[in-house]
Amino acid sequence: MTEPTPATIDVVAIGNAIVDVIARSDDAFLAQHALNKGAMQLIDAATAEQLYADMGSAIETSGGSAANTLAGLAALGKNCGFIGQVNDDQLGAVFAHDIRALGVRFATAPLSGDEPTARCLILVTPDAQRTMNTFLGASQYLPATAIDADLIRSAGILYLEGYLWDPQQPRAAMRAAIAAARDAGRRVAFTLSDNFVIDRHRADFLDLIDQGLIDILFSNEGEVQSLVQIDDFDAAVAQVAAKVPVLVSTRSEKGVIAVVDGIRYEVPAAPVAQVVDTTGAGDLFAAGFLAAHIDGRGVEDCLKLGAAAAAEVISHYGARPEADLNRIRDALFG
Amino acid sequence: MTEPTPATIDVVAIGNAIVDVIARSDDAFLAQHALNKGAMQLIDAATAEQLYADMGSAIETSGGSAANTLAGLAALGKNCGFIGQVNDDQLGAVFAHDIRALGVRFATAPLSGDEPTARCLILVTPDAQRTMNTFLGASQYLPATAIDADLIRSAGILYLEGYLWDPQQPRAAMRAAIAAARDAGRRVAFTLSDNFVIDRHRADFLDLIDQGLIDILFSNEGEVQSLVQIDDFDAAVAQVAAKVPVLVSTRSEKGVIAVVDGIRYEVPAAPVAQVVDTTGAGDLFAAGFLAAHIDGRGVEDCLKLGAAAAAEVISHYGARPEADLNRIRDALFG
Repeated sequence: MTEPTPATIDVVAIGNAIVDVIARSDDAFLAQHALNKGAMQLIDAATAEQLYADMGSAIETSGGSAANTLAGLAALGKNCGFIGQVNDDQLGAVFAHDIRALGVRFATAPLSGDEPTARCLILVTPDAQRTMNTFLGASQYLPATAIDADLIRSAGILYLEGYLWDPQQPRAAMRAAIAAARDAGRRVAFTLSDNFVIDRHRADFLDLIDQGLIDILFSNEGEVQSLVQIDDFDAAVAQVAAKVPVLVSTRSEKGVIAVVDGIRYEVPAAPVAQVVDTTGAGDLFAAGFLAAHIDGRGVEDCLKLGAAAAAEVISHYGARPEADLNRIRDALFG
Repeated sequence: MTEPTPATIDVVAIGNAIVDVIARSDDAFLAQHALNKGAMQLIDAATAEQLYADMGSAIETSGGSAANTLAGLAALGKNCGFIGQVNDDQLGAVFAHDIRALGVRFATAPLSGDEPTARCLILVTPDAQRTMNTFLGASQYLPATAIDADLIRSAGILYLEGYLWDPQQPRAAMRAAIAAARDAGRRVAFTLSDNFVIDRHRADFLDLIDQGLIDILFSNEGEVQSLVQIDDFDAAVAQVAAKVPVLVSTRSEKGVIAVVDGIRYEVPAAPVAQVVDTTGAGDLFAAGFLAAHIDGRGVEDCLKLGAAAAAEVISHYGARPEADLNRIRDALFG
């Protein structure tokens, strides 16, 4: 490991480059299509086509878990870069436009050819729960050569999403990125993303943690329990927290917790007038947490800004912030 | 003219088949790009590309003036058909999916080739005004052969948007549709769309009216004045109303009026907690008005349902209804 030079950008993230297709739905529709409410499932092109044909009128917004987190970080004034794979089709242009319009560096060359830009068909039920059906398309072909090692080395934090562990090529790319980041003395943040993702990759995730490659681990209640296969939240947190410098876990309306250097911090959920669509809650929580962390704030402030950013994004459709997050931060911290 | 047989569908509309690309903006951005606030301008591919690159992160939703009106009519239980031209690209698939998902018949064959599906780059300023920049792409190539005369004859009302008078081919197609509708004893509704459109086609529009080809004319305050080039609203209304059986005019916060068989009706604007984006206000007003009209309600009720539908659509981003319009109608009429 070389002596770290000062980082010139705050966060570089590697994630799925996805356009979200959001429609309202009811529970009967989920049941008819055998969809697992609240979860993310990967679907193939034929299933995507059929489900899209069956679902209601939709809106399209750029999405992707890590990309949503960067959208929040950029909105909070952080200097960010994104690495992810789109096709050179119309939805790829939408994704690239939106992330660049936020000021995020995004230079991954689009693919040509038959694998279209990834889409996530998101069904939002009246209880504001989102059920995600992801057609990965081009996103699963992010090659290791797309990892700009200079960019990785220049960023204080490398942020990775568990969702992208599913496809083989991006997984290899992320392993290369982790190596580059560690070699440059940078920190690595990782989000566990989803229980079913953990089921598919538990051994890998535990191995990354055991090797000390993860500095900041983002999770929700179910994920931290699933990771170590312990049904009790506090026991699961204790076990995972012993292995990572910073463990963060969101618990929906029960608030958010972090364990840093063995000390547990807890903050209640931020109030929301009406929860409309929970898509992006975890992503924006991570954005708020990291933004405050980069600003050198204490753990409780990090949790508070995370909770406030999550509260903003669940108050409307779509997983990217609509309100001015700086104003929300200033209201919190003065 | 043959004796009319009973209509089997309520409304068939011909309009631009557009995907809206909506971003927030400020007045300075409009000034820098020499954009005429509140209006619609046609832009070419190069301008569309440059403006898109400059504008902020966006959301995409299906739009198009007449198509938005059908979305409202379909939501209110009316049986509708749409004729409009998309390309067989991703945005064309989005447009087709969304209008079919609403239950609207849409069978216009997509174009192949280089003219992409139309996009409207909509900049919404903090005062909720929308400034529209339309790249017509495929939409301007709607051929007269796309007019399904059987469909036109089967519908009680043919609904046309003034915006589509700009491109030559759709204008010819609409003239053919008017002829088919009149021949079948159907009524023709027409919306004037925009002051600048009227400036370009005033003689044509007045000619259609003078020939008695328009049964229901939708307008806003500025448009009805522009049509007859009279600055006084009441005088302009009186002059136009003498030539069309039903004249309807919206006046933003000043409410809505209709003149039917020489009698003027007036209804105040429906209350809105927060006006977010005025895109689609006129389109949804027309939807509510026509839905109540088809149900055989009196003119005041038509105005009320129009105003209520408009109030719904301006309370959020995007020009298609999000709330349940049937519930809004039932709250009005019991």
